[in-house]
Order: sequence, then C-alpha cells, then structure tokens
Amino acid sequence: MFSRSLGKQGASITLCGEEIALFRDRRRVYAINDRCPHRGIPLAVARREFPGMITCIYHGWTFDLATGNLDVVLTDGPDSPICGKVQVRTYPVAERAGLIWVYPGDEPPPPVEQDMPPQLIAGGTIVGKVSRRRGNWRYASENGIDDGHGKFLHRHSLWTTFRMMAAWSKARMEPDGEWRWLIRVGERVEMADTYPRIGRWPAKRPWWKFKSKRPRIGIALPGWLLVKETDWTGFEVYVPSDADNYYAMLIGVLPDTGLRGLLFRLRYKLYIGPLFHGQFNEEDQWIIQKIRIPPERLYRPDVSITAWRTHCEKHARGATTAAPSPAEELVESGV
Amino acid sequence: MFSRSLGKQGASITLCGEEIALFRDRRRVYAINDRCPHRGIPLAVARREFPGMITCIYHGWTFDLATGNLDVVLTDGPDSPICGKVQVRTYPVAERAGLIWVYPGDEPPPPVEQDMPPQLIAGGTIVGKVSRRRGNWRYASENGIDDGHGKFLHRHSLWTTFRMMAAWSKARMEPDGEWRWLIRVGERVEMADTYPRIGRWPAKRPWWKFKSKRPRIGIALPGWLLVKETDWTGFEVYVPSDADNYYAMLIGVLPDTGLRGLLFRLRYKLYIGPLFHGQFNEEDQWIIQKIRIPPERLYRPDVSITAWRTHCEKHARGATTAAPSPAEELVESGV
Amino acid sequence: MFSRSLGKQGASITLCGEEIALFRDRRRVYAINDRCPHRGIPLAVARREFPGMITCIYHGWTFDLATGNLDVVLTDGPDSPICGKVQVRTYPVAERAGLIWVYPGDEPPPPVEQDMPPQLIAGGTIVGKVSRRRGNWRYASENGIDDGHGKFLHRHSLWTTFRMMAAWSKARMEPDGEWRWLIRVGERVEMADTYPRIGRWPAKRPWWKFKSKRPRIGIALPGWLLVKETDWTGFEVYVPSDADNYYAMLIGVLPDTGLRGLLFRLRYKLYIGPLFHGQFNEEDQWIIQKIRIPPERLYRPDVSITAWRTHCEKHARGATTAAPSPAEELVESGV
Repeated sequence: MFSRSLGKQGASITLCGEEIALFRDRRRVYAINDRCPHRGIPLAVARREFPGMITCIYHGWTFDLATGNLDVVLTDGPDSPICGKVQVRTYPVAERAGLIWVYPGDEPPPPVEQDMPPQLIAGGTIVGKVSRRRGNWRYASENGIDDGHGKFLHRHSLWTTFRMMAAWSKARMEPDGEWRWLIRVGERVEMADTYPRIGRWPAKRPWWKFKSKRPRIGIALPGWLLVKETDWTGFEVYVPSDADNYYAMLIGVLPDTGLRGLLFRLRYKLYIGPLFHGQFNEEDQWIIQKIRIPPERLYRPDVSITAWRTHCEKHARGATTAAPSPAEELVESGV
Repeated sequence: MFSRSLGKQGASITLCGEEIALFRDRRRVYAINDRCPHRGIPLAVARREFPGMITCIYHGWTFDLATGNLDVVLTDGPDSPICGKVQVRTYPVAERAGLIWVYPGDEPPPPVEQDMPPQLIAGGTIVGKVSRRRGNWRYASENGIDDGHGKFLHRHSLWTTFRMMAAWSKARMEPDGEWRWLIRVGERVEMADTYPRIGRWPAKRPWWKFKSKRPRIGIALPGWLLVKETDWTGFEVYVPSDADNYYAMLIGVLPDTGLRGLLFRLRYKLYIGPLFHGQFNEEDQWIIQKIRIPPERLYRPDVSITAWRTHCEKHARGATTAAPSPAEELVESGV
Repeated sequence: MFSRSLGKQGASITLCGEEIALFRDRRRVYAINDRCPHRGIPLAVARREFPGMITCIYHGWTFDLATGNLDVVLTDGPDSPICGKVQVRTYPVAERAGLIWVYPGDEPPPPVEQDMPPQLIAGGTIVGKVSRRRGNWRYASENGIDDGHGKFLHRHSLWTTFRMMAAWSKARMEPDGEWRWLIRVGERVEMADTYPRIGRWPAKRPWWKFKSKRPRIGIALPGWLLVKETDWTGFEVYVPSDADNYYAMLIGVLPDTGLRGLLFRLRYKLYIGPLFHGQFNEEDQWIIQKIRIPPERLYRPDVSITAWRTHCEKHARGATTAAPSPAEELVESGV
C-alpha cells in the first residue's frame, strides 16, 4: 500500500489470508488483526477517539495499537475485570520508499531493507499504483518472469509500438551480482525468422530502423519483479492476498529528484502510467485470471519459470525441502 | 408479515428453512407449502380462479387452501384418478394485532395469544415494518438484549441525540411479573467516569441537563424484544428464515386510538420510523451481519446474553437438555 | 448455432460440459477444445494470422485447425522441439440447413443427416433463434413433449389467443412412419367439461367459433421437438450445455423459397418470432428453471414424459441398460 493512501481512517487488507486493519496514528502506521475478539466485528471501522488506541464500534473495547492489548473497556467501567486479559495480534509494519510494509509471518521479521532492492532504498522519485486483483499470486509472478509471452501477448500493446519485439529467443536465468535478482539473459535473440508452414515472421514495421534497447528483467524473493529501463527502473511486487486474489504493486523509480523528478512524474502520468502500468499490464491481468493449471505443458522458454520455481523452493524464507508439486512433475525435462 | 401487505396475490416466505406460500381468500389467510408435488413448481405464483382453492400455473393442479388436498386437476378431466391421493402440507395461521402468524413447527400449535405480549393483544394503534435481512436470528436477538452496545454503538445515532447515554452500567436479568419477559435491570449506572489512560469519558453534552427516562428492556421466547417507552411500547420480533437470514418485525404500540392514535401515527411517520426503526436499527443490522463467532470472548455486561441463552435452553418449546454449544463453552464464567 | 452468427472471430460454446472453440476458416467451420495445453488459456480468443491455423494469444502456440496439432511455436523459433508433440482435441463439425452441428461424443460420429429430420434436410426457408438458458436440458425436452401444460400454462399466451385450447385430453405416444418421431396422439379431447367443486370449465371465448387445427407434436432423439403446423414446421432442439444450462434452438421451416419464403420471413419477424418463439416459449423457460425434482408425482397425461424417458433409455446412442434413475422409480405406475 502507498503511504499516501493511508490517512486517519483505518484500512483493511488481506495478506496470506490474514485480515489486517491498518491505522495511522500520529504519523506512525500500525497493523492489527481485523477482528475484535469479543463478537468478531471488524476493527478496521474502529473509532479513533484516543491517541495510540482504537475503539471497537460495537461495545467500546479499546485496544493499544502498538501492543494489541485491551487496555480500556468503556462500557464496563474503569475497573473492568477483562482489561489486561485480552490481546489482539499485531503485525510488524514499516514505511520505506513511500510504501507500507507489513509482515504477516510467524517467524521473527527480518529488517525490511533486507527484502527491498537497493534502487528502491536509495530512493529518488517514486511513482506507481496498487490494486487487488483476481488470480493466484504465483501465476502473476510466473507471468512476470515468463520469457515467451512478451514477444506475442504484448506485440500489439500501445507500450511496445515503438519498441523492437524479438520473434523468439533462447534465454537462461543467472544470479545478479548486485542483489538477489535472478536475471533473464538472452543467449540468442532473433528479430524475425523463417518458420515452417508460415514463412517469414513477423512482418517488419517500417519505423523499426532505430534499434530500441531491451530492458533488463529479473525476479527475486519475495515476489519482486525488475524491469530496468535505461534511465528509470520499474518494480512489480506480487503479494498473496488469498488463494484466489493478489495485490499488484506497480512502481517506477528515477534516482533523481528536483526538476528531473518532476519531469519523470509528468512522463508517468502521461505515458508510463496509462500505457505500461495500464493497458500493457491489464493484458497480463486478463491472462493471470484465465490460467487454468495443472495440467500444464511447458516449452523451452519456460526455463525462466522453472528456474524461478526451483529458486523459490530453495530460498523462500521458511521453505522446507517439500516434495515437488503435481504441476512441477508434469514439466517435461526434455523441452 | 403485516396483514395489510397480503392482498389477493400470493406471497412467499421462508420460515425455519420451510418455503411457505401465503394467500388471502375471502378475508382469511392460508399458508401452504410452496412446492407443487407434481414437478416442484412454486405455488406462490398459483392462479386464483376458484374460491378456496389455488391452481398451479404449470398443469392446473388445484389444491384446497384449508386442507392442502388435490381436489381437481383441470388438465386431466373430471375423473382424474390422482385427485384425493395427493396432499400439500398446510400450516396453522392466524391474524392478530394486524399481523399474520404462521406456525411452521411439527408439534400441535399453541394458541397464538400464548406467544403474544399482553400489550399487543390489548391493541390500540399499531405501527411498524417488516424486512428480511442477512444474518442469523440468534445474533439479532442477542444484539437486542445486549447491555453494552447501546452505550457505544448507538451513542451517535440521531435517535439518541437528546437522550442521556450512560458510560457504563452493571445489570442483572430478572423475570417480569406481568408476562414471560426477562427484564434487564440496571444495578449501577454511571453517566460518566474516569478511566485509566483516557481520563474523563464521555464529554458532557450541553443539552443533557433535562434527565431523560431510560426505556425498560426485556426479552422473551420466541424471539420477542421489549422496548417500553413512557407512553408507547416498542416490540421487535426476530424470526429465523434460514441459517443466514432472519425477518425483523419492528412494531410500535400505543394503547389509545382516536386522535391520540392519529398523532402517534404521525409521530411514527416523522420521527420514530425513520430514526428508531430506521437509522438506529440499521446500525444494529450492519453489526448483526458482521458478527463472526465462535470464538467469542464475553465480558461483564454480557450477562444479559448468557441469561437469555440459558433461558432459551430451559424454556424454548420442544427444547431438550442439549449439551452446551461450543460458543457457550467459551464463555469465561469469571468475567 | 446458426451458421450466419459465426464470422472470422472465434466463438466459445459448452457442450455436455466440454468447452469448445469454433472458428470459420476459408468458409469451413472448425471445432477445437477451448484450452491451450501450455498454460490453460482459452483458445476461442486466439489470433487468426495464418490460414488454417489459430495462434494462442499468450505465447503464440499455433495449432492446425483440422488436426489440432501444434505445428508452429512462434516464440520458440523454427526448430521448436515441442512442435509435433502436442495435440488439442478437435471435434467433428458440419454445416447443414444454415446451422452448425458439433459432435462432442467419444464414439465415431454418425452422418449428421442421420440426426436431422427430413423436413430440415429438404430445406426451403429456415428461420429461428438460439439461446443459452438456465436449467437442465432434460427438463426442457420433457416440458416440450409434456401433454398437460399446454392446456393450462399457455392458456393466456398471446400466441394462443385465437387458438382453441382443450380443457383436457387423453393421449398416447406412438412411433411415426416417416422418421424416428414419437408422436403424441390425442385419444379423447374435451374442449370443456364439468368438474367437481368447480363446475363448467373453461369459459367459452366468443371468438372460438372457427375451429383451429391443433399442431402435430412429436419428439425424437437427440433432443428434437416437432411442432407441425398446417403450412410450416417448427423444430425445437434442446442441447445439454452443462448440468445447469442448455441451449434452446428454435427453428421454423417453410418448404418453399422465393416470394412465399419472403412472406414467411415477414410473418416470422412480426408474429411467430415474438409470440411463439418469444412470449410463449419464455413461459416454458421460466418453468424449466423452476422445476425442482425429484421427488416428483406424475399424473395420467405424463404418459408423454414416461414414454419419452423409456424411449431414451432404449434408443439413445451409447445407452446401456442402466438402472432406473431415482426420479423414474418415483413414477406411480398406476396413474
């Protein structure tokens, strides 16, 4: 969630199936389980009468935002015997780079910077948008790193009108020196080729004489996608909400501020926002909610997906050496 | 259902999961299972060609409204051999106090007056409204008698603007001499108090100099709530429709008729209806559909709820000495 | 589906639970399973860049429409090793009488003419409409041949205003000499009668002096209904989509073309379409989605339904001598 969208009113999010209420209190952000233990009413609609505390709208149970302790019960008097005996779960929360980061895990939380790419920590001018979408977050992140679809699904996007699109390529995934990115490296890239039955494909576009530089694409745990353009960097974060929905955070970062930053904001508003984070990304979104696997039948460029799956199984925080999922078993190792 | 809302056209209701069709025929009301036994078509849309009977729209099976017997089958001729061999379940039904009462139980029905509060039998001027709402009827009735929520949830209702609202109170539930009401009696009522962390609460409202009399609140089987004001009496009846929906009948009774009755109707239309049976009650309705229990964690004022639950287990018609429900077991006896 | 409604864009249908994509390619129609085996994306939205082939929008997997073979994978180059190893199921498809016929069965398909009534093969002027509707196709076809409902449900339809409606009748079902129709034959038809409790019914309509000829009604596998009027023939085809939905194809055929054909088209547009295939048929549609059986309790005129059920069990393609369904067992043999 963007910091700027959380005001005095509480907000409600669902992370990994946990319903969480967010509040801003005297500039700090607090995250607390979104259910009053008394009768199960959501706390995201709690009243904000007392600093550092929220009050459930139903019976005035008043919880400390930092500890989750039930400190006051207005409708049971100053000596209410239940005070001090009830606690609501709170979640570690931080604000970095204009974004709110909540840790819903059971293990001790790592420093939030450990999970943020250096360019985002370095900051500058940060733009973007967040939305909750239908689909599983794994499909969203696999679609992000997927090597093949960019060359076909997005071929007619407005965003790629003036970009040279390869016909096909061979790629491998390799670690990045800078951060924990797994980078997609093209080993062979053909802009056009001659196919059986079809002949030459694709047709040349006349304005494709000026070679456009392809962005650098990478993926990293937990849920980061990197789209590094020449002067700015795009990040996409895919966050599991529940089994059928995910949050997509689409972020653009320019390392400068000042006039350059202002011009970047303008470029985002006029061009990058509506075309890249808009129409281009909506093509992906349509696909992600339509994916029906297993069964699946992978092909050569899906090495980007299988490398990412293997990486997750090895490096995901708290991952155990689990048996391969049925989908994994269907992957044809020979293709 | 209000008597005035059932005309010649049939109506369809769901009581305790039973789908029931209601008809008015020559001033009497009849209740009949809402399913033709032939092909399962609803009878609530039946044609009304013949007095005392309804005719299924599909094949003209014609049932006696009083007995539910299949007496005529128009499309099978006067000698139709199926006549007399098929019966649809009918339900005991009565009209009292301008309301329609249907008994969906399997046991012999008690006289309807036995389940009606004396003030309603006595009559006078009766106003109100009925609606079907999302939520379980038990939550609706528990919310009705709930001691604590009135002091917080309804603190900012328009209805309570000129009423003095207590900060907290201690109450007990005791039987009423007059009828089977379980009455909520305040043992100690504090209009404001000094709380840890918070200090004095609530702030005084300047117009609270004229002390307002608090209404007398009670609850009774099956599903009655009493809100006795100085000159008129409010009743709320919570009727189970199915596991996730209930009917709320909100009734106001003034013992007088004539000019006083007319003035009461006007007061209901302008003030009690929109404010008490409107906004105030909609706050409850929002809560009732949001309640997610078990688990629940009760507190001192919930003695009103636990007393009502115990009362139901002992006195509900047909109740057997069942094991306590899981929700009951979670109640902390010490609070 | 009518031939005229399938253009260059693909269409998606569900037949017997199978999701099928339809395409027209150089005037021929092709039917192919609506799921790309790679990542499960629907093929009905595939791109149509190359003749005789469709290309999945996600990664450019290109399938031959006739064989379903994966012949080209654009984003994996001319030597893509997966080509020739993947196949999507295709379905036999034919165009006859302006309609598209798809065979979703597993057995070898019979010639499509074998399943078409001779009047439709003979052709002439063919009009009609197709829609997908809520309800089970068995209820739709049983409602089609149902003897009793026409005399009551449709008594007040605009379509029957100037038709004489019988009060009741006795009918039997008998095979037709011409085709595999099971024809409903009236043994005794009473236009009005004197019933117990009710007396004379129905009241005479004054304009019923000119006797109208009743249409000839028949039913045939798979899902055909015949409504033979004096000069034109109506067909209704009920096609199972899934357990809760069916397609209703409503067809009218006049054996002539030319000026007579044009006049028939006009008559369809002004009268038969809106009244018979419109309001009259929508009465049936309302019923079909409301039918809740089992249990059911059949009556004498339902011999039309039981004869049809027995016929299906004996003659349906691929039918085995299965045990009677629970609904069947409830049929009272004595009525």
